[in-house]
Amino acid sequence: MSVKMTVVGSIAYDSLETPKGKREKALGGSAVYFSTVASYFTKVGLVGVAGKDFEPKHIEFLKSHGVDLEGFELSKEGNTFNWVGSYGEDFGDATTHSTCLNVFESFNPILPESYSNTEYLFLANIHPALQLQMIEKTKNPKLIALDTMNLWINTTNDLLKQAIKKVDVLFVNQQEAMMLAGEKKFANAIDKLLELGPKRIVVKLGELGAMTATKESRFFVPAFPCPDITDPTGAGDSFAGGFMGSLAKHEDLSEKGFRTSMLYGAAMGSITVENFSVESYLKLDTKIIEERFKALKDMVTL
Amino acid sequence: MSVKMTVVGSIAYDSLETPKGKREKALGGSAVYFSTVASYFTKVGLVGVAGKDFEPKHIEFLKSHGVDLEGFELSKEGNTFNWVGSYGEDFGDATTHSTCLNVFESFNPILPESYSNTEYLFLANIHPALQLQMIEKTKNPKLIALDTMNLWINTTNDLLKQAIKKVDVLFVNQQEAMMLAGEKKFANAIDKLLELGPKRIVVKLGELGAMTATKESRFFVPAFPCPDITDPTGAGDSFAGGFMGSLAKHEDLSEKGFRTSMLYGAAMGSITVENFSVESYLKLDTKIIEERFKALKDMVTL
Repeated sequence: MSVKMTVVGSIAYDSLETPKGKREKALGGSAVYFSTVASYFTKVGLVGVAGKDFEPKHIEFLKSHGVDLEGFELSKEGNTFNWVGSYGEDFGDATTHSTCLNVFESFNPILPESYSNTEYLFLANIHPALQLQMIEKTKNPKLIALDTMNLWINTTNDLLKQAIKKVDVLFVNQQEAMMLAGEKKFANAIDKLLELGPKRIVVKLGELGAMTATKESRFFVPAFPCPDITDPTGAGDSFAGGFMGSLAKHEDLSEKGFRTSMLYGAAMGSITVENFSVESYLKLDTKIIEERFKALKDMVTL
Repeated sequence: MSVKMTVVGSIAYDSLETPKGKREKALGGSAVYFSTVASYFTKVGLVGVAGKDFEPKHIEFLKSHGVDLEGFELSKEGNTFNWVGSYGEDFGDATTHSTCLNVFESFNPILPESYSNTEYLFLANIHPALQLQMIEKTKNPKLIALDTMNLWINTTNDLLKQAIKKVDVLFVNQQEAMMLAGEKKFANAIDKLLELGPKRIVVKLGELGAMTATKESRFFVPAFPCPDITDPTGAGDSFAGGFMGSLAKHEDLSEKGFRTSMLYGAAMGSITVENFSVESYLKLDTKIIEERFKALKDMVTL
């Protein structure tokens, strides 16, 4: 089946504790968060690998959201990528207790033939060599976005920059932006990142929200104030899912379209963190999405 | 002469070095930055003290901007408050080499009778006991705003909270917001600060810009991207001067009026940091203010 959007990324089981409680082997991973969220906007295909411990109910969860699983691989060689971590009182950076890559270690993503005409491609945080492979395989995408992390900035900088050169939108957080640009001043970092090739940068600012920059413009969106934050895991990938989903749904790649999509990104990020794992999407009243979008829009309208 | 706005704060000589150069005994201080900037919007009176080393050309500078100096005291007892500091490559937090309070140490602000009907009062970062005195002296202000710093949060917390309770707008930076609220989570800190009494919080976010929050709303304004930042000193007080100046000029205390004023604040902050000290205002083409306001407005409009 043909898909309008494709995400390539991780499928994970997260065991985590936050001030609001704990979960064992909760469904997670960048491709899971992204595809679940994007499914509210468009037809999305997931390219990723899970292990032999992956539960049928989690496949059902993705299917029930209309996520296309032709690119989903269920490996018999090992277990699903497992992350164990915790968040402190401030819900800031997570403390990682263990990371077992398991089947994700030898992840060799294969883009199904039916996905090769995908219009929107989101390369979640995976090895830049794999991101480059995926870019080669897509025939005529309208927009490619790439997320990364400090690990790849430090260890595979050249490959990462090759990949970044070929994408339209680069996702980073503030620290990664400065690290990748080799700049101590944030405004300068943004300018340098834009010189690497992408037309647009999206910077995730955590509790403050997010911003997007092109050579001509900048736009900020605040984080929706969530007094009931439960689990920050997946906030960034959910932001990306809402952002890309909105672009694919509205097919508006003008500055206004991108700004609107930033608001949908922030809306979806805020919905994700109100519950553990992807639990917000077990029974989401879709009215909430538009309500939150409107509340955020009011927060940026003069 | 009656003034529409009054600022109470410091008058200083700053000796500083930045990656762009250095200045000895450059005019500075919160009341100087604020009144200079606000003078482009409204009639402002300055309550502050300078010492016997204060140069006539600096009095002329303030007068040439129409700043009312009835509240300005020229002490013969000592020298002007002197700060010596430097900024590193990232233009981030300044390193203080020395702070000589001089005549500012025994600053006992007196509100001239002609200022008692001031409509807008800005209490720059001074001892909370003095801020409280000033609040008592104003008869029927439309709006009082207060700025503070970590020193007073740590040493005179009770007095500071008494003062905050009586003002309409509280200015803080992100770190101060969390310190004052005793909260590790920024969103919670904002909620707690609003419970202290002020109707509105303005949080200065440095390189990222600024945000304002009430119980009902939040609004972000990005920092204008300044590739030619020269000296960050006074950015916050200039923001406040533009914000308060715009409120006084437009007389619009609706949410829209406050948001518009946030943009003028950001515009003026960006103008200040392009040159050392108040040098941007030696010969300011006032068209720049509206141009920068418009550029910032475009950065927040969907």
